[in-house]
Order: sequence, then C-alpha cells, then structure tokens
Amino acid sequence: MDVLPLGLWLDFLGTFVFAISGALVAVRRGLDIFGILVLSVAAGLAGGMIRDMLLGATPPTALEDPRYLLTALAAGVCVFFGHRLLERLNKPVMVLDALGLGVFAVSGCQKSLLFGLDPLPAILLGVLTAVGGGATRDLLVVEIPRVLREEVYALAATVGATIVVAGTALGLSEVWIAVAGVVAAFGFRVISVWRGWRAPRAPGS
Amino acid sequence: MDVLPLGLWLDFLGTFVFAISGALVAVRRGLDIFGILVLSVAAGLAGGMIRDMLLGATPPTALEDPRYLLTALAAGVCVFFGHRLLERLNKPVMVLDALGLGVFAVSGCQKSLLFGLDPLPAILLGVLTAVGGGATRDLLVVEIPRVLREEVYALAATVGATIVVAGTALGLSEVWIAVAGVVAAFGFRVISVWRGWRAPRAPGS
Amino acid sequence: MDVLPLGLWLDFLGTFVFAISGALVAVRRGLDIFGILVLSVAAGLAGGMIRDMLLGATPPTALEDPRYLLTALAAGVCVFFGHRLLERLNKPVMVLDALGLGVFAVSGCQKSLLFGLDPLPAILLGVLTAVGGGATRDLLVVEIPRVLREEVYALAATVGATIVVAGTALGLSEVWIAVAGVVAAFGFRVISVWRGWRAPRAPGS
Repeated sequence: MDVLPLGLWLDFLGTFVFAISGALVAVRRGLDIFGILVLSVAAGLAGGMIRDMLLGATPPTALEDPRYLLTALAAGVCVFFGHRLLERLNKPVMVLDALGLGVFAVSGCQKSLLFGLDPLPAILLGVLTAVGGGATRDLLVVEIPRVLREEVYALAATVGATIVVAGTALGLSEVWIAVAGVVAAFGFRVISVWRGWRAPRAPGS
Repeated sequence: MDVLPLGLWLDFLGTFVFAISGALVAVRRGLDIFGILVLSVAAGLAGGMIRDMLLGATPPTALEDPRYLLTALAAGVCVFFGHRLLERLNKPVMVLDALGLGVFAVSGCQKSLLFGLDPLPAILLGVLTAVGGGATRDLLVVEIPRVLREEVYALAATVGATIVVAGTALGLSEVWIAVAGVVAAFGFRVISVWRGWRAPRAPGS
Repeated sequence: MDVLPLGLWLDFLGTFVFAISGALVAVRRGLDIFGILVLSVAAGLAGGMIRDMLLGATPPTALEDPRYLLTALAAGVCVFFGHRLLERLNKPVMVLDALGLGVFAVSGCQKSLLFGLDPLPAILLGVLTAVGGGATRDLLVVEIPRVLREEVYALAATVGATIVVAGTALGLSEVWIAVAGVVAAFGFRVISVWRGWRAPRAPGS
C-alpha cells in the first residue's frame, strides 16, 4: 500500500504504540490475557480498518498484511509482562503516542486523497484514522473516548492532515509532505501536553 | 446520488438537524469545541456512512460530497455560539429532528432498493440510516442510545421506510413515494411525541 | 454463500441463538418491543455484517438473504412472549450459544480464507464474526462486552478458527474441517464453563 518502506515501518510503529495504549487500559481494568490482546488489536488496528472500510479498500491493509496483527499482538504480550515498567514510563509512552498520531493522520489523509476524496473529507478521514483506534479502545471499556475529553488531541491530527492536503495541492513531493505532516502533528501534540493547552468551551456552557 | 435536487436539499437539512442534536449533547456534557464538532459530524453523517458501507457504496456520499461535512460542521459552530437559544427552542428542534428522521429513513430505504436489497432488509437499512447517527452520538458519550429508550422513534422510521417499499412495489413515482414516506414518518413521530404514545413492554418484565 | 445447506441452517441457528441473547438483555433492561427487536437484530447479525464489511463482501449476506433478518426478528418475538421461560432455561441457552459461537467462528474463518486472507487475519476475522454480535449487544446497552470479561469465550472461537486454518492448510475436506471446528469450539466452550476455567491476568495487576 505505502510507496515508502519508511512509511510502512512508521505504520508498524504507530500500530505498536497504539496497541500498547490499548493493552495498558485492559490491564488497568483487570482484564485477562484475552481482553488485553483484544484491546491491543482494537486500539492498534481499528483506525486503519475504519478508514479502509470507508474508502472501500477492502480487505483492509491491517488484514491483508499479517504483520499489522502480529505487531499489535506483540505489543499486548509486552504489556502483559511489562506493564509495571510501562506505567512508569508514561512520558515516553505519551511521546510515542504523539508520533503514532502523526503517522496515522498523515497516512490516512494521503490514502484518502489517493482514493479521490476532496480535501475536507480527506482531512476528516485522516483524523478518523488517527483517533479511531483510541476511541474504539475507550468505547470497549465503556469510557467516553479520551479524544472527546482530551482537548487538543484531535487538533494535532487535524494539523498533520491539513499539511498533507496543502502540500499535495502545492504539488510538493509525497515524502516531504509526509515528513512535514508527521513532524507538525507530533510537535503540536507534544507541545500542547507540555504547555497544557486547552480548547475553548461553548460560551455560557 | 439523489435523482432529485429536492432530495439533496432535504438530505442536507436532515444532516444539519441531526448535527445540531449531536452538538447540543456535546455542550451539555461540557465538551470543548472539538468535541462539539466531532459529535456534530458523528450525529449528522454516521447513519448515511453506515448505510453506504453496508451497501458497498464506498466512499460514502457523506465523504464524496464535501457539502455534507460542511453542513455538519456549520451546525456545530451554530450550537457553539447559540446553544442557549437552541436549548430554549426544544420544540422546533424536535420537529426538525422528526423531519430529519423521515428524510433519512426514506432516502436510506430508496438507496437500498436501488442496490437490489429485498424489501425487509431495505426497511432495516432505512431505519438504520435514520437512527444510526443518533445512536453513534449517544454511544460516544457512553449513554444508552435514545432510540432504544425513546420508544416509538424507530417505529416512525419504520413507517416511512415501509411506505417506500410498498409504493415501489406498486410502481408509484419515486417523488411521490418519497413525499408520502417523509410525511408519514414525520407525522407519526410528531403525533407520537404530542400524544405520549408508548410501545408495549414484554409481559411480566 | 455457503456451499452446504447444512452450513446455511447452522448459520440460521447461530443467528437465532445470538438474537435470543440480545433480546434477553433488552428485556432485563426493561426495553420495549422495539428495543427488544433492535437488540435481537444487533446480536444476531452484527458479527456477520462486520465480517462482510471488512471483506468487502457487500451487501452482507445478512442483508442479501432476508431469512437472516426474519430469523433474528422471530427470536425477538419469542423472547417478548417467553422470556420468563427462557430465563429459567439458562443452561440450554448457554449450550446453544456455544454452538452459535462455534458455527460463526468456523463460517467466518472459512469465508475469510475464501477471500484470500492469510491464516492469522482469517482467524482474527473468524473470532470477530463469532464475538461481534455479542459485543454490539453489550455496547448498545453501555456494558463492557462480556467477551472482554468472560475470559475463555474468545479463546473457544479461536480454537475453532485455528482448526479451520490448520485443516485447510492440510487440504482436508471443507465439510469435515467445518464439523471439527464447530465441535472443538463448542466443546471447549461448554467444558470451560462447566469446569470454571479462567485465563491468566497480567502478573502484578
């Protein structure tokens, strides 16, 4: 699917990191090994699966290439044995999660443009690719998705996807567009957490 | 997709009204502007997206024509600034919601017949188109979907979709079928709220 | 879709049993007849629909053949009138549910292989077919899906799907593979409930 081996490896990294976040939620909820693996797979693969179902790119990449599933399962096994270590590493995990967010937003938006979507829907689908896994993870344990509460999370994905759309319209090289989009989304996310940025609420709510 | 410009405008109206309902739920839950926009888009577009994914009509209309997304986002922005006014207008909002329900049930059922579904599955998919957005909205904030609790809501959609199936079997004109279906679903819904109709519960439950 | 009439009838049986489980949850939650039918349809058909959307086999079998929908609705009507009897029959219902689990895991995995998926993703999709309906049922009433809590439920589906993959790799006859897979998943499930098997939790969680 991806033109770039780099893109593919970034995709696996994003899958791994998101799967880690799913497995950690499962451990915190006291689920057993199967619950942990289910949440790993859901958090790691659901975003891309939703994107591919909406684009009609079926079966989704995450099912056609078994390495995605293996990556998500490996993350679940790592968490099963190493969750105490990972819980203490919450800053590095957040940073990796921000990287996954950027990678998925960019690859989701690029694939949507490739399938002929207009800029605005392509941005939406990029954001959905980036936040869909985490939302599925939270909904499966009956929590309001963090993306709805944690303010500027979706905005970071929007920044990355918007750069992809703008760069493509300007005819820039796909590789540089991808790099710029990932860096922008990643940077925005990390800085927003570090500085505690918050988004406005409805006046009088 | 729609043969009728009228149908298209009704579809936008339905999207707008459902998106309003999503945004109002987000404001009530104290979500920020992004949460409001996410729930607007989910409530306005999810029903049609689910329909199109099930029919294999991908990418869904709601992603192919950017006006759907713009309509849903506009509704979110209106609610962000005007939610206090809209909360007081709950009767007109209910009436518009009933119109959206009828429009989506009819257009969902017509599209399903066009894709070769049998009458019964076409009715199911019409109903799913009509109630899918609201169900997604409620599930995202971890509430039991109103359609499961608010009794005759799904029945109104079923009435509209059934008229489409019956009218099509009788070979009536598509326009008149659509008008009859929307009016029936709308009327049924408004009257059922006005008269407080309730559906039966299981004996002894 | 199925090569075997036997397979088709088993599929209807699985649909019926899962729909029963959905309707019983609806009655317990005090939902009305429409809520009961919605949960019947969701629990009975969602697993296969998710499978078919992911495979790109649209419209899904459950919408193309109206007998699936009729089966699910019939189960809902049975529960509406007979829920007190069915609540007392919880052992036979559990046994039938185990049969449905095996049937759906096997047919989901066989269809995935037919669509060219690799063994590991085919097992995943078989399991998703088997547990998707129940998960949708639980999410609609805002409960953590039983499959995440009830330990070895997903494992029984995995056993059945793995036998399908192994048997297909060995070139055995499709019929015997299906029988072996269903019997293994069914047997594993029934024995695991009977003996109270539990899966390991993360060390120190």
